[in-house]
Amino acid sequence: MKRILIYDTTLRDGNQAEDVNFSLEDKIKIALKLDAFAIPYIEGGWPGASPVDTAFFHEIAAHELKNAVVVAFGSTHHPRATAESDKNLKALLAAKTKAIALVGKSSEVHAREALHITKERNLEIAADSVAYLKQQGKEVFFDAEHFFDGMAGNPEYSLAVLQRAFAAGADYLVLCDTNGGALPSDIAAMVGRVREVLPEARLGVHTHNDCGMAVATSLAAVEAGCCMVQGTINGVGERTGNADLVSLIPILELKCKGAYRCLPEGRLSMLRSVSNYVAEIANLQPFARQPFVGRSAFAHKGGVHVSAVNCKSSLYEHINPEAVGNEQRILLTELAGRSNIVSLARRFGFHLDKDEPVVVGLLAELKEKSAMGYDYAAAEASVELLILRKLGRRGVRDFFKLIQFRVLESKRDADGVPLSEATVYLEVEGALEHTAAYGEGPVNALDKALRKALSGFYPRLKEMRLVDFKVRVLADGDHRGTESLVRVLIESADQNNKWVTVGVSYNIIEASWQALIDSITYKLYKDENEMRAAQQGD
Amino acid sequence: MKRILIYDTTLRDGNQAEDVNFSLEDKIKIALKLDAFAIPYIEGGWPGASPVDTAFFHEIAAHELKNAVVVAFGSTHHPRATAESDKNLKALLAAKTKAIALVGKSSEVHAREALHITKERNLEIAADSVAYLKQQGKEVFFDAEHFFDGMAGNPEYSLAVLQRAFAAGADYLVLCDTNGGALPSDIAAMVGRVREVLPEARLGVHTHNDCGMAVATSLAAVEAGCCMVQGTINGVGERTGNADLVSLIPILELKCKGAYRCLPEGRLSMLRSVSNYVAEIANLQPFARQPFVGRSAFAHKGGVHVSAVNCKSSLYEHINPEAVGNEQRILLTELAGRSNIVSLARRFGFHLDKDEPVVVGLLAELKEKSAMGYDYAAAEASVELLILRKLGRRGVRDFFKLIQFRVLESKRDADGVPLSEATVYLEVEGALEHTAAYGEGPVNALDKALRKALSGFYPRLKEMRLVDFKVRVLADGDHRGTESLVRVLIESADQNNKWVTVGVSYNIIEASWQALIDSITYKLYKDENEMRAAQQGD
Repeated sequence: MKRILIYDTTLRDGNQAEDVNFSLEDKIKIALKLDAFAIPYIEGGWPGASPVDTAFFHEIAAHELKNAVVVAFGSTHHPRATAESDKNLKALLAAKTKAIALVGKSSEVHAREALHITKERNLEIAADSVAYLKQQGKEVFFDAEHFFDGMAGNPEYSLAVLQRAFAAGADYLVLCDTNGGALPSDIAAMVGRVREVLPEARLGVHTHNDCGMAVATSLAAVEAGCCMVQGTINGVGERTGNADLVSLIPILELKCKGAYRCLPEGRLSMLRSVSNYVAEIANLQPFARQPFVGRSAFAHKGGVHVSAVNCKSSLYEHINPEAVGNEQRILLTELAGRSNIVSLARRFGFHLDKDEPVVVGLLAELKEKSAMGYDYAAAEASVELLILRKLGRRGVRDFFKLIQFRVLESKRDADGVPLSEATVYLEVEGALEHTAAYGEGPVNALDKALRKALSGFYPRLKEMRLVDFKVRVLADGDHRGTESLVRVLIESADQNNKWVTVGVSYNIIEASWQALIDSITYKLYKDENEMRAAQQGD
Repeated sequence: MKRILIYDTTLRDGNQAEDVNFSLEDKIKIALKLDAFAIPYIEGGWPGASPVDTAFFHEIAAHELKNAVVVAFGSTHHPRATAESDKNLKALLAAKTKAIALVGKSSEVHAREALHITKERNLEIAADSVAYLKQQGKEVFFDAEHFFDGMAGNPEYSLAVLQRAFAAGADYLVLCDTNGGALPSDIAAMVGRVREVLPEARLGVHTHNDCGMAVATSLAAVEAGCCMVQGTINGVGERTGNADLVSLIPILELKCKGAYRCLPEGRLSMLRSVSNYVAEIANLQPFARQPFVGRSAFAHKGGVHVSAVNCKSSLYEHINPEAVGNEQRILLTELAGRSNIVSLARRFGFHLDKDEPVVVGLLAELKEKSAMGYDYAAAEASVELLILRKLGRRGVRDFFKLIQFRVLESKRDADGVPLSEATVYLEVEGALEHTAAYGEGPVNALDKALRKALSGFYPRLKEMRLVDFKVRVLADGDHRGTESLVRVLIESADQNNKWVTVGVSYNIIEASWQALIDSITYKLYKDENEMRAAQQGD
């Protein structure tokens, strides 16, 4: 079993995708998730090139990563500088990472036409930059940009670049298909050639998906001898994206007859949750047909397929979906489900039997609301409340009754500051409360007015704060543009817990209201439960 | 140059995708489009299995196709029937197509565990079914289901199935990776094995994308000797989908050193429009990162990439985008430099020099707003307006002046229906307009009131519709939960164009307002420009 090192560049090359734009907080969250997933190398960004990337390296240093080494990315020194004087290399060192990825031209055409330097000068630049960073004690990955295109033109030159970088001390030579145009058979042959010329070097591969074959070209490179694979979660990246690690990792671990290993035992089943987490943070719709982790990846629609998988799943499934945290779904025939409800209720402390009528009722309600767009996988507090209400459990009750709310939003003149004001009129513990608040936007005004009305009755609401507020417009054939269905997820926290609630409506205020109400109800229910338990304990 | 036959199964296997459900009209439209694109074989469906499919073959017969042969798909005869008596084969013949695709089991395990018959009986069924259809004068494609999985288990048996189908007269033997689990290297080896055993047979390949490698496995099969490739437009299909012909066709035509040809001269540049047409009919969002045809496929975001493609496009483009009907795009980001501005302005028809003060000013403004969260990479119409305003170009003006808007949102009782009402008070072409509208949510109400106020003055606004509305909550250290900064992207369209605009604010209504105003201004500006050009042309 050969260990293949997974090198994630979601935070750097992934951020080059047209529709991805990570904030500092996004990058930190993703890095921590990748560390938990035990990815060995995380490329964090290009220090010096963007303020977010510079800040990332400072910030991530405050976290103790358990598995991952953070890598700073930058280019070889400027043609008019030396390694010692180069601004870019200084910024790389200032990032204070253990490892540095250094991108250098490995194609004669690029040296001449993009850098406007001689091919000899380009060799010097590569060698000097690598040597200088090695002197500073760094682990150095030399990213040989445009390597495969270079090999198609002047292979001796491209190989010479690798030889110089290797001689200068590079720890890995990473062969890049920067333009994404190389075919798997060409890549296999060219990696073979490098192995002949540099049998001692450790090789990596970095591919792009411009031909829809980035996963296959990466696999071909591994089969030909590369021991490191660079890619991104969900294949996001410049143009058509990078090799999708969410496909590559399970292919290497499950499909290659035990030849390769990438992750510690037991991590692979996190694959789907890692993929969804990154999609969520990037605010991209998860892709239903994504291999291994997509919602449709093990969904059977064809009649022949459905009856066969009912006999034996493997007849139409190439792997066991649970191995990657996914599940089989049967479309149209709606067969599955009651056992899901039973195991969900068990999580919240209720032992139900599969044949109880309440299970059937819950299943129907959850299916109906999921089809409407309620994302119960993300919003467990809302599911727990739904189950508790259906079971008629003591403690979960309506802590107040809405009589009316209004939100008034106004703006004067094109340059005027918009004003948001909310009024709420509620019945709380038998009393009538009528109050108002301003806010930053309509949902914030409503949130403030609601807390103002309730906190006299439930002072512990003051412990609760809203941590995150997410809005997703759901695609839907009939409603388009500003009429679209909207899902709101609200994450709340108090000193002990965090919880997520959901609301769905064509109206964003209504969807937010649903999620807010669930969030407050959950807090009050948990507090009452806790108090009751404490009293019984006395 | 070897001719590779393209066999499209969008209408049959494509329709097995979870989110695809073609009507009869959809199928006819797509078939006509594929014929115009000169695809040689179009699999229309399974006659007898669904009323839509049965009707399709009747209906399509009334159209004179110029290039394509329509193929009916069905399975070999039932184990308890004979070829002559089989209902399924009768339905296939009733479809009256010149060609028939017949799917049969080519794996011992499947014969035993899915069909519950002996392996000998399965051989007979395959041979008898093929022979019977050949007697009826049909061109017969034998789809060897689960062929590659079968080869991994009992290769002699899988090869025996092919031999029997070939001996019975099958015109093509189509090797299927039904579960999508085979690797390119395995497929290449197994196709090679078939060529040894059946050197006379013409071979096809049909793959699925469960490992994200359907394009690569198809290419491997072609390289190993297959002369027919089955796939779907945009890769739609059962589970994770089929091999994407929109990648495969340009790979075979452009990337294989002239070894293969699929389409008549001049058709390849239709690729993008065919892809978009099918996506539109399937009601699927076009995938921005789709190879060759995606909106992002030739979009450059990285600063290093942008300055290089400004010298010479091929430095960061593996093919000329026009060859497949696509175009180069330069994106603007926080990382962008002056060369991005220059090439962007060039796209809008302005020749600027890198050192002009207006370029520096524009860059500063774009960077500042990008840092605030304006996503100009996605919202090109907003960038174009910003540039035009900065350059003081004639034609881009404020088509109206806001005096005040208000949005009133209210809800009575917990179960009440929320009500959204907007009023706008504007000065338009010297007149005062004061009007109101209800909507599905506050932004929709505002949108409707605004159009109502303006469309008397600018009747062509009625051509414009909002296609997509995206909301992203931007994390920001100081503002959290419902106070967060919000970015809204609005995609609009009229009969000729699509454009995206952006707004950013702590207030979602204000952010939506900004994006709406830009969208309307863009439409009115483009219309006035067009009219002016038409007048000058007279």
